[in-house]
Amino acid sequence: MSSFTHFNDQGRAKMVDITDKTSTIRTAIAKSSVQVNKEIYEKITQNAIKKGDVLAVAQVAGIMAAKKTSDIIPMCHPLALKGVDISFNWKNEEEEYHLLIRVEVKTKGSTGVEMEALTAASATALTVYDMCKAVDKGMIIGPTFLIEKTGGKNGDFKRDESLLDGLNVGDES
Amino acid sequence: MSSFTHFNDQGRAKMVDITDKTSTIRTAIAKSSVQVNKEIYEKITQNAIKKGDVLAVAQVAGIMAAKKTSDIIPMCHPLALKGVDISFNWKNEEEEYHLLIRVEVKTKGSTGVEMEALTAASATALTVYDMCKAVDKGMIIGPTFLIEKTGGKNGDFKRDESLLDGLNVGDES
Amino acid sequence: MSSFTHFNDQGRAKMVDITDKTSTIRTAIAKSSVQVNKEIYEKITQNAIKKGDVLAVAQVAGIMAAKKTSDIIPMCHPLALKGVDISFNWKNEEEEYHLLIRVEVKTKGSTGVEMEALTAASATALTVYDMCKAVDKGMIIGPTFLIEKTGGKNGDFKRDESLLDGLNVGDES
Amino acid sequence: MSSFTHFNDQGRAKMVDITDKTSTIRTAIAKSSVQVNKEIYEKITQNAIKKGDVLAVAQVAGIMAAKKTSDIIPMCHPLALKGVDISFNWKNEEEEYHLLIRVEVKTKGSTGVEMEALTAASATALTVYDMCKAVDKGMIIGPTFLIEKTGGKNGDFKRDESLLDGLNVGDES
Amino acid sequence: MSSFTHFNDQGRAKMVDITDKTSTIRTAIAKSSVQVNKEIYEKITQNAIKKGDVLAVAQVAGIMAAKKTSDIIPMCHPLALKGVDISFNWKNEEEEYHLLIRVEVKTKGSTGVEMEALTAASATALTVYDMCKAVDKGMIIGPTFLIEKTGGKNGDFKRDESLLDGLNVGDES
Amino acid sequence: MSSFTHFNDQGRAKMVDITDKTSTIRTAIAKSSVQVNKEIYEKITQNAIKKGDVLAVAQVAGIMAAKKTSDIIPMCHPLALKGVDISFNWKNEEEEYHLLIRVEVKTKGSTGVEMEALTAASATALTVYDMCKAVDKGMIIGPTFLIEKTGGKNGDFKRDESLLDGLNVGDES
Repeated sequence: MSSFTHFNDQGRAKMVDITDKTSTIRTAIAKSSVQVNKEIYEKITQNAIKKGDVLAVAQVAGIMAAKKTSDIIPMCHPLALKGVDISFNWKNEEEEYHLLIRVEVKTKGSTGVEMEALTAASATALTVYDMCKAVDKGMIIGPTFLIEKTGGKNGDFKRDESLLDGLNVGDES
Repeated sequence: MSSFTHFNDQGRAKMVDITDKTSTIRTAIAKSSVQVNKEIYEKITQNAIKKGDVLAVAQVAGIMAAKKTSDIIPMCHPLALKGVDISFNWKNEEEEYHLLIRVEVKTKGSTGVEMEALTAASATALTVYDMCKAVDKGMIIGPTFLIEKTGGKNGDFKRDESLLDGLNVGDES
Repeated sequence: MSSFTHFNDQGRAKMVDITDKTSTIRTAIAKSSVQVNKEIYEKITQNAIKKGDVLAVAQVAGIMAAKKTSDIIPMCHPLALKGVDISFNWKNEEEEYHLLIRVEVKTKGSTGVEMEALTAASATALTVYDMCKAVDKGMIIGPTFLIEKTGGKNGDFKRDESLLDGLNVGDES
Repeated sequence: MSSFTHFNDQGRAKMVDITDKTSTIRTAIAKSSVQVNKEIYEKITQNAIKKGDVLAVAQVAGIMAAKKTSDIIPMCHPLALKGVDISFNWKNEEEEYHLLIRVEVKTKGSTGVEMEALTAASATALTVYDMCKAVDKGMIIGPTFLIEKTGGKNGDFKRDESLLDGLNVGDES
Repeated sequence: MSSFTHFNDQGRAKMVDITDKTSTIRTAIAKSSVQVNKEIYEKITQNAIKKGDVLAVAQVAGIMAAKKTSDIIPMCHPLALKGVDISFNWKNEEEEYHLLIRVEVKTKGSTGVEMEALTAASATALTVYDMCKAVDKGMIIGPTFLIEKTGGKNGDFKRDESLLDGLNVGDES
Repeated sequence: MSSFTHFNDQGRAKMVDITDKTSTIRTAIAKSSVQVNKEIYEKITQNAIKKGDVLAVAQVAGIMAAKKTSDIIPMCHPLALKGVDISFNWKNEEEEYHLLIRVEVKTKGSTGVEMEALTAASATALTVYDMCKAVDKGMIIGPTFLIEKTGGKNGDFKRDESLLDGLNVGDES
């Protein structure tokens, strides 16, 4: 059984010492989603054609949140991110409208960027909620999860997305 | 059809003017969850008996994130929160372990605290992920949603939780 | 001669005590600008038609900076902003392209929002510079100035814009 | 025509991937200014002799803002700054008093520090405005611009200051 | 025995609900100190005569930290501070040089400002340490404590300073 | 006599240029303390047995503050911390209860981490004060000081703790 790495000798949380880890290229991809009603779906997509669109604001929020990750997550190491890319897709079926959010984060450093990708995905989704909540407060955010990570000595992670049946994932394209 | 309130005359996003809204008591309750494997479930609950527990750190993260909400969500108004309370429950069935997160936020102000509750719930869940990811990166965060809000002239919101079948909600107690 | 209000008895800076000031509606309008070359002008305006536009990002930056004002300006009182609206106009003449930025801030509080409007205008302009600097680093930001303020016992301020001849102000519309 | 580097395949903004850029010494020098009236000029310079001076506060604000740059400018990469130096000069002519602000930023990293220099110059100027606005709100900030940058594969930048006739630049010394 | 107010029903920390507390004038005075060697004492006091002085920077740091208090102290309520004043005194005896720091904070709100005064005093002292540590790292910060608070229903607090014998307090003047 | 390194040619503060310093492993250990009364001592230690304990919250606050150091201390260089560990001990004698706080910070970088350790120790102590102040506001924080640092060309620092007689240091264990 692998051990928790966030606790010190007094059984308390600490920021784990990563001084000895080598600096390598790290990537992580996370996904989230927002389930909205038809009215919100139509408004978001119609505004997207005009200049002011919900997704543009949400995307900026996600990128800025990625940079704030170590300020939000207590034991998370600060990392100088090298790249963040957020994209959107819609997956609609039978009056259910799912905005799919995909975040890719990249850096060169001594620890992974999973938390940055997950935090950016969450902030993006929360911003969509904020901008549409005057229409309907019933939106559902997520699930939010890691799709893959690369880099670091512990090996890569690749989620078997076929196991996510029922979650709002959508196809990679 | 109600209109989006976050866009100005140029079709761009703005922070909506709420100068004329009256200052009243506002509450919001949001929920999130983290689906973990058996090993993480056992480690979290066993550590909870000792001093250093994952949930204590996650809870502090959630409360601090509630205070950062208007710094994370671009069009969200800054609000002086008056109270934040985060509690945890487990809902386990057939080798599935769901940590349920419930956040209640309260203030007296001229706009609601839905975003603060949702942001706190998200940060709490993300922190659980961060502290347990050395064991397994397959954890799934959320769904994250609003349960209820009170205060303000637009009326209260109360989600019909029976419609959330299949989501990890758990009973209020 | 009116006295500086930011110094204490030791001749040092302090945050002036405003406990006795009454809470009233406060507004402020500030302007800034970015002088760009033809290539940048064309790229910004063409991208504005598509989804990803420079101005959308700059505007979000400006609104978020307005909320950070008291964190950036040392002696500035924290204020819960009630509304921020940023709009853009172009003023082009003889191969000179000026992006005009206009920020309007509103709150109800015991001190004015001039600094919030000026800070938002500056951050908006800086973001335009950041997003276009790969094309040309010769852009010129500003001048940046207050157009008007209302509220508070010291009276309103209204700049005589006819005195701004040669500055990139543009007409209000 | 060089292309905008801040947009992804969906035409949306992203934080550009700089993982492959090499870490080299980077410098940038930016300038701003504040045009003040005679009363403010005299007060600032007289207070400068005593302990509490406007410029000391403004300078601290500028240095702290340099460190916040990637938190203010959405697509700006976080960078660990190695040195920031801010200096002031006065350029007065015919009842016009111009406080000239010069910021030099240095780091070793994989992207330039133009935005840090420009942001610091802006925050310094805004703080001067804040501390003097009780005397006169008519002050004018800027123009604000880059003077030079070095480091990085895209070559250095050096502004021909003789083209800045009419702007408040002042001589380098 | 009075009860801890920071724990919820699960025995976990929460941000205490202060919605029902009335908004009144609140003040707090805190003190800290830095014990320095003769060389540092002389350098600080001599630089104070010139424009760049350690205390000017430390004071700005203290005021800005007061505004960040609720971001640093997890269960601390956000408060819009109305005034912060920091002053310095020296108390020297037998080759011991004590820089005394006194912070006074004032607001009108529904909770006290003790934490803001203590946090500002700490940040002021830490900044003095930072700026002088190239000369000697043996400086000692504090003790740091509350001198008095007023406002709120729980009554005022006034420390009997005669009990602080041996601590570096100095006389009020 | 060594010179202050924080002043530029105009006698003003600057962030010292460390571009030429080599990146090496850096460590620092700082200590602080909180003197509490018997009631608080008993409550903290009893709560420590249950899930919600003061020290767990204080420790999270300390670690998060370590990451915020360059945002709090104006001339402090930003640094990507690699590890932070905070531990507690009690030293009680004759109705005096001293909570001893020990912070160890580690990184690989071009400047030391003394300020990060001292800032974390201060924030930890301040949080203990905040969580217990409803019981007694007479608590005394600190003294706070550096115990040792390693790394960097200026040599290591090791405090002779026998000279700290009367300060609340406690034994290393």
